Amino acid sequence: MSEEGFIYRRVEKQIMALIDGEAIRSGEKLPSLRKLSSQLGVSISTVNQAYIELEKKGVLASRERSGFFLAEKALQMPAPSSRPRPAMVPTVGTRSQLIQKVLEALGNKNLLPFGVACPAEELLPGKTLARLLHNSLRSNPARALDYSPVAGDFELRRQIALRSLEAGISVTPEEILITSGAMEGLSIALRALTKPGDNVLIQSPSYFCFLQLLENCGLRAIEIPSSATGIDPHDVQRAIERFAISAAILVPNFNNPDGSLTSDEKKADIVRLLAEHKIPLVEDDVYGEIYFGEKRPGSCKAFDTQGDVIYCSSFSKTIAPGYRVGWMIPGRHFTKTLELKTTTNICTASPTQMAIAAFLAEGYFERHLRRLRGAIHNQMESLLLSLHRHFPAETRASFPEGGASVWVELPAGIDAVDYFFRAREIGIGLAPGAIFSTQEKYDNFIRLSCTGIWNKEMEKGIERLGQLVQQPPRDTTFAKE
Amino acid sequence: MSEEGFIYRRVEKQIMALIDGEAIRSGEKLPSLRKLSSQLGVSISTVNQAYIELEKKGVLASRERSGFFLAEKALQMPAPSSRPRPAMVPTVGTRSQLIQKVLEALGNKNLLPFGVACPAEELLPGKTLARLLHNSLRSNPARALDYSPVAGDFELRRQIALRSLEAGISVTPEEILITSGAMEGLSIALRALTKPGDNVLIQSPSYFCFLQLLENCGLRAIEIPSSATGIDPHDVQRAIERFAISAAILVPNFNNPDGSLTSDEKKADIVRLLAEHKIPLVEDDVYGEIYFGEKRPGSCKAFDTQGDVIYCSSFSKTIAPGYRVGWMIPGRHFTKTLELKTTTNICTASPTQMAIAAFLAEGYFERHLRRLRGAIHNQMESLLLSLHRHFPAETRASFPEGGASVWVELPAGIDAVDYFFRAREIGIGLAPGAIFSTQEKYDNFIRLSCTGIWNKEMEKGIERLGQLVQQPPRDTTFAKE
Repeated sequence: MSEEGFIYRRVEKQIMALIDGEAIRSGEKLPSLRKLSSQLGVSISTVNQAYIELEKKGVLASRERSGFFLAEKALQMPAPSSRPRPAMVPTVGTRSQLIQKVLEALGNKNLLPFGVACPAEELLPGKTLARLLHNSLRSNPARALDYSPVAGDFELRRQIALRSLEAGISVTPEEILITSGAMEGLSIALRALTKPGDNVLIQSPSYFCFLQLLENCGLRAIEIPSSATGIDPHDVQRAIERFAISAAILVPNFNNPDGSLTSDEKKADIVRLLAEHKIPLVEDDVYGEIYFGEKRPGSCKAFDTQGDVIYCSSFSKTIAPGYRVGWMIPGRHFTKTLELKTTTNICTASPTQMAIAAFLAEGYFERHLRRLRGAIHNQMESLLLSLHRHFPAETRASFPEGGASVWVELPAGIDAVDYFFRAREIGIGLAPGAIFSTQEKYDNFIRLSCTGIWNKEMEKGIERLGQLVQQPPRDTTFAKE
Repeated sequence: MSEEGFIYRRVEKQIMALIDGEAIRSGEKLPSLRKLSSQLGVSISTVNQAYIELEKKGVLASRERSGFFLAEKALQMPAPSSRPRPAMVPTVGTRSQLIQKVLEALGNKNLLPFGVACPAEELLPGKTLARLLHNSLRSNPARALDYSPVAGDFELRRQIALRSLEAGISVTPEEILITSGAMEGLSIALRALTKPGDNVLIQSPSYFCFLQLLENCGLRAIEIPSSATGIDPHDVQRAIERFAISAAILVPNFNNPDGSLTSDEKKADIVRLLAEHKIPLVEDDVYGEIYFGEKRPGSCKAFDTQGDVIYCSSFSKTIAPGYRVGWMIPGRHFTKTLELKTTTNICTASPTQMAIAAFLAEGYFERHLRRLRGAIHNQMESLLLSLHRHFPAETRASFPEGGASVWVELPAGIDAVDYFFRAREIGIGLAPGAIFSTQEKYDNFIRLSCTGIWNKEMEKGIERLGQLVQQPPRDTTFAKE
């Protein structure tokens, strides 16, 4: 994206902030191009471009010779501010059966894809990858057939080491361990750090696979709130004071499902706090590259002085979920995690590692990310506007600065699990809030994913979902499904 | 291989049996072509071919007009019959540091490959696989980019279900779970069946990764002997009587490192015994397809009536180690293992699954296996003859009917770990016996792998290894390395 492109995006945001703050109300006229351009110190054409973009999205309406007006009902929805706080007690178990049902639905290609958390094929570099994979196999057949080193393909580790600087992480290739996706990194990290019965600190809401992982390892979850501004270090402090905690798994950048971003300042505080109490932190940064601002957010690992932050990420949300290539930077836990990688599956597949190494080495990644971020950002804005148009006024939604999902609080009393099954029946995928916590705090929440290019079908889908909210729930329960 | 090919091979074996039984001694004349052809009921030309093959291998010598004689020092070595029995006590821990050192050496491409346990590149179908992978990516780009189902690519599962009949296993594709290699299957199985502190029954000697896996899971090993005739059901019985056992991991077909084969009758007994005591069995069958006889050996899974045998295998020893594609048939443990697969790494990589599915579907596998078995069998025979020529008379060696390694007992007093390091210095890889048990029973044993096409360098390598046995050990220890 050009420099100019970034400026009009920023102006768009500034206008949206004015609207959100109710400085301008429905039906009112926006400042003239000249006035706003002078106020913001940008060119008239930039303001004009921002206005036009907002008109396309239905936020503004233009009237001949009169300029731009705020469209009726075009306001952003309020964030789920009244978000329920999780009880801070160790909890075990998940709604496994429900998660299984949801996962089956998520994998259903016939549903509108608001349920899936990975980019649609149209946004992934399938052809380039296929070509690079083929070249790798031809030019180095032995390397493709053979086991890679346990820690992974060296060229890939080198590329990741270079790229880690963007997240404020300075490492050598030797400190990186390739895993089959970030999930494997998290699983290995937890097995390295804990034993059954231990307490693990997590955000609430949290990605449901974390909850399954904790359950499978016999661990207890201590949930602290993930608010609109991410994780509050005071909550971490309170949890440490009350419980013996063996490890934390946190997603400071664009937590799935709520998309919250924890600022770099808070990251530093959290790392310091945990280090003081010698609690290792497992940091999941799979969405770190999908930011909508001008700068990549930092990482907890960047503030790690003790080697006690195990950083985990992957290419599943950016290049190819099906290639199963991720990595971890385990700090002082390297030897232990390497042993666990050996007995997990010896090493990650060679051909897919080679293809992704080539994708990075040949400079495709940055270009691809720019396109991906733009598309997801655009879809998220369109989704939020569409929600505002079609959902009841009491609905609240997060407006993340990155990631791939929006966390929506439906009017109180709506059972989102029942809603999930009804949506599935009319061909629309989504994820019910209940699966993102061990506690029953999010029963009227849903996660809507933004993973493709916005289109009319999606608009129509959101409209139908809005109608579904108004319909009375059926007299059936999940158990009967 | 042609039918005729099989016959001359069988005759070769029969002649070797006569020699082993000392019916013919060094320097003595072999029966005439006519006599043996009538005794064995085969053609004269088949006997002639068998004699010529044995002459090539140095077993026989021919004298003009006098027929074939048994060459001096051409006898097979005796099997390690005086094999030490492991103590039947729960043991924890491995020689982790030593295993790490050995693994580093095994991965060293500059060493003669008697240390590696996977087929050399020259025996793997690299070009065909690369072509099939490329075709898969072109014809189905979306399937290659996306997650496969957690249980794996359906077409691959279908192919494996069809092929399982050869091992006496009748399953539907839905009962198969794809894993990233057999190791992942074993790891998932153990995590499904045990909790830290439990006892697990294993063979002695056992593949060192099993010992690492047990250690990483906090489990205790109960070792029972793996003799020249495999696992003795009486030993299983005795172990069950003495200990509370949570699971068994056994390799009935060509156990790594000793190559022993447990007969199908004994397999049936073992499965029955374990089922009576409700002890689940994890069966590792990675070498099941590498048999030198006329028929594939069966599996424990074939005798499983309770669903309590978890069968694990992979394509790592047959098609491509680096593709990391294996599978498990978890029986009644399917749901639990599927959950653990999800939190291990969501699913196995899609492109490599697709390539291997195509390799099977297009009929390449059987043809490839025939060539692979022939090459490994030939290498193993050549290796054994070479050992006999170059090693001290007290040396003993197994002569497996399949698999990829020979288990060699060096003269008493030789420290195989020191020997391993000395061999490495002169550019020869091998695996010292110490890493194959939690107990110090195999300190004068080595494993020699047969994974390529026999050549002069290998012959020279065995000669040098033989000289090394005669040299006094150095005055250094492993710790100083």
